[in-house]
Amino acid sequence: MQLETISSISTPVGEGAIAIVRLSGIDAVEIADRLYKGAKSLSSVDSHTINYGHIMDPDTQESVEEVMVAIMRAPRTYTREDIVEINCHGGVHTVNRVLQLTLKHGARMAEPGEFTKRAFLNGRIDLSQAEGVMDFIRSKTTEASKVANQQMQGRLKSYVEELRQSILNILAQVEVNIDYPEYDDVEEATTEFLQEESRKVKKEIEKLLKSSTQGRILREGLSTVIIGKPNVGKSSLLNYLIQDNKAIVTDVAGTTRDILEEYVNVNGIPLKLIDTAGIRDTDDIVEKIGVERSRQALKEAELILYVLNNNETLTDEDVEILNSMSDQKVINIVNKLDLEAKLDVEDLKSRYPEMPIVKTSIINSTGVDELEDRIAALFFEGEIQSVDSTYVSNNRHIHLLEQAASSISDAIESAEMDIPVDIIQIDLVKTWELLGEVIGEDVSEQLIDQLFSQFCLGK
Amino acid sequence: MQLETISSISTPVGEGAIAIVRLSGIDAVEIADRLYKGAKSLSSVDSHTINYGHIMDPDTQESVEEVMVAIMRAPRTYTREDIVEINCHGGVHTVNRVLQLTLKHGARMAEPGEFTKRAFLNGRIDLSQAEGVMDFIRSKTTEASKVANQQMQGRLKSYVEELRQSILNILAQVEVNIDYPEYDDVEEATTEFLQEESRKVKKEIEKLLKSSTQGRILREGLSTVIIGKPNVGKSSLLNYLIQDNKAIVTDVAGTTRDILEEYVNVNGIPLKLIDTAGIRDTDDIVEKIGVERSRQALKEAELILYVLNNNETLTDEDVEILNSMSDQKVINIVNKLDLEAKLDVEDLKSRYPEMPIVKTSIINSTGVDELEDRIAALFFEGEIQSVDSTYVSNNRHIHLLEQAASSISDAIESAEMDIPVDIIQIDLVKTWELLGEVIGEDVSEQLIDQLFSQFCLGK
Repeated sequence: MQLETISSISTPVGEGAIAIVRLSGIDAVEIADRLYKGAKSLSSVDSHTINYGHIMDPDTQESVEEVMVAIMRAPRTYTREDIVEINCHGGVHTVNRVLQLTLKHGARMAEPGEFTKRAFLNGRIDLSQAEGVMDFIRSKTTEASKVANQQMQGRLKSYVEELRQSILNILAQVEVNIDYPEYDDVEEATTEFLQEESRKVKKEIEKLLKSSTQGRILREGLSTVIIGKPNVGKSSLLNYLIQDNKAIVTDVAGTTRDILEEYVNVNGIPLKLIDTAGIRDTDDIVEKIGVERSRQALKEAELILYVLNNNETLTDEDVEILNSMSDQKVINIVNKLDLEAKLDVEDLKSRYPEMPIVKTSIINSTGVDELEDRIAALFFEGEIQSVDSTYVSNNRHIHLLEQAASSISDAIESAEMDIPVDIIQIDLVKTWELLGEVIGEDVSEQLIDQLFSQFCLGK
Repeated sequence: MQLETISSISTPVGEGAIAIVRLSGIDAVEIADRLYKGAKSLSSVDSHTINYGHIMDPDTQESVEEVMVAIMRAPRTYTREDIVEINCHGGVHTVNRVLQLTLKHGARMAEPGEFTKRAFLNGRIDLSQAEGVMDFIRSKTTEASKVANQQMQGRLKSYVEELRQSILNILAQVEVNIDYPEYDDVEEATTEFLQEESRKVKKEIEKLLKSSTQGRILREGLSTVIIGKPNVGKSSLLNYLIQDNKAIVTDVAGTTRDILEEYVNVNGIPLKLIDTAGIRDTDDIVEKIGVERSRQALKEAELILYVLNNNETLTDEDVEILNSMSDQKVINIVNKLDLEAKLDVEDLKSRYPEMPIVKTSIINSTGVDELEDRIAALFFEGEIQSVDSTYVSNNRHIHLLEQAASSISDAIESAEMDIPVDIIQIDLVKTWELLGEVIGEDVSEQLIDQLFSQFCLGK
């Protein structure tokens, strides 16, 4: 189904070599043709071809841009509609002029995510795949992009579809029982089958949910704070983490702008370093802890790297701060191993048995590998799942899966209590529906609108 | 001529819907094929087609990206070499992975501007056109983009080529004279012809140079400072200029990031507002003038909008500041026309006859149109050239044209002084060579490298 034609700038806004205005919809080619001047009209060229020409303002006959226009006719397109991509020289002003011309001559400005929404509405992808597209774009490490790519390619979808099929199979058996209530042996067989199959489904859902902690960390990064008294080596640690080819943004060759937040990639785990500017600019973080904002960041941190000086004894101040973080994930880093040991590590260990201790000499790069392994171990419990497995990383999915797990547990419990199968059926149907929502079946228009509005423009 | 294959991200860096990795060179298709998995190999598809598939890491056989790959074979391409454009989902991380794979499998990282440099080296465009490409990308108003577009399309090139042809014609005549020095009438005719034709060339060069002031303003914007005492209406003026559909960056629908400097478009002239943040945040600009930085900005401003309050008399402070700006272009804005007139406008006029006065009531939008006209008039002397004429806006071109004008003036002067034509010939050849440098003939490799290094990556 082709809808009214939408148009948007589909490349990031900024100076670049190429900028694209993308149109999708029933009049996409026709609208582009109104503005295009080339060897042939766009309506006469083959699908999936690139055509050199100029964008002219029809009102003034003035050449606005020299362009390459890609024509992709439905259905082999991103949206399953006709798509025209006008590749412009990459200026902000001129690409905007081209966009304005498309809007003036028949297209409507696309809403954020509207191209992907059409791919969903036209059945090319399901909702979990659409959400994977967004995660893929936002991914900050190779591992995160793998997880998102798999979701985008429909891995979660197939997984969920299989679970739904299993539930349908159980429901079919229940139907048999309801239709022939006079046969006792059918009822018994049904209850047994129902319990067994439901447990399998429940186990699969729980397996998915188990992946969600790691999935969410891979997707969003682990908010991390490095603190410690002045001159213990916080800056050195930060620099070590950022250098060593680990900075995620700066490894885009030639990038100078500071576009993303400061992320570093530690064994595939993206650490989102909070308030790193502060860490770099000042050494009096400990003093600053009095400041409300620092306290807040500390409280919200998922990982705290507390740096201590091997050459100094533990102070009351250290103890006070460490005590205040007793319910958080903290790694104590005993740095400056190259200097004389004055810190009582055994005492530290007995005071805070739940906080791993890593000994380092950051300036000599000693112990940093162990620190990185320790960070990974703390969150992936030593058994970092292969990213080839199916991950759930999206909060919406997690929430639905939790409900589905609870719903199927109800069904199992009821079956154990010999409650009539037509009652149990209700919970099974509910589980089936909740799983359906993950892939976008029977979800409300409002939810769909809200989900796609989180996309970037032009996608 | 196809050179070694280069590769680069050609879209601006950031989150977007589409990101492109572009390859150009002799092995572009082959390298892409090593990474591509689709219905057909890229080497077997037609030129100027778009092909759906996946980018795989050949070492791990893992799918890295879902892509559309555009194949454009030489010579009908931007660089006149084989070009492959890999259209990715627009994430920073993943597009960088695709780039890294192309580099690992045979391509070299492109230098800034290297694609356009190849277009130049392969003779598709001349140097002035290449420089037009960059100006086009950086253009901030429609007028500036028109000027750059014309240069990109070869308008300055044709103009300069015609001038060079005229000089060649003169030189040919000089040759005749040198070959037949025994004929007095030939010498006389030559001198006459030489003077007449050289004056024509000189006039054309001067015409080009005359366009350069406007050209440069259109290209770079006019650095503008709004000042005045507290509470005279500076912020209102700034907001008026920025709103009213005039903000250049913010009219890209959906843009929230503050990417470019703050430019506003006044009657087609881009005003580059200096330190506008300061203007917005504080009203004590006058006090701040004591600060060195503000003084510097003021000194370098090409346009100063000095805002006065109609409801207050001129103070010693006003006089002091206005005196200090006597050699700059200042427009005095007498604002708050809606209030009782206490400012002696006639006195102001007689004190600063060279500064235009505009009376406004910015909150009522009164007088602002006149202000905008006045700004245009101040720089385009009432006769804003049609942007259809040939503009020179590039400092390199201006410098070369100035030298060429001086050189041809020498030739004319020599001819008037009856200096032998074989001496005059030297100045004419020099003029011809200087004009050649504008379009990139006989320019040094070093200059070419330096020029293209100012381009953005991937162009």
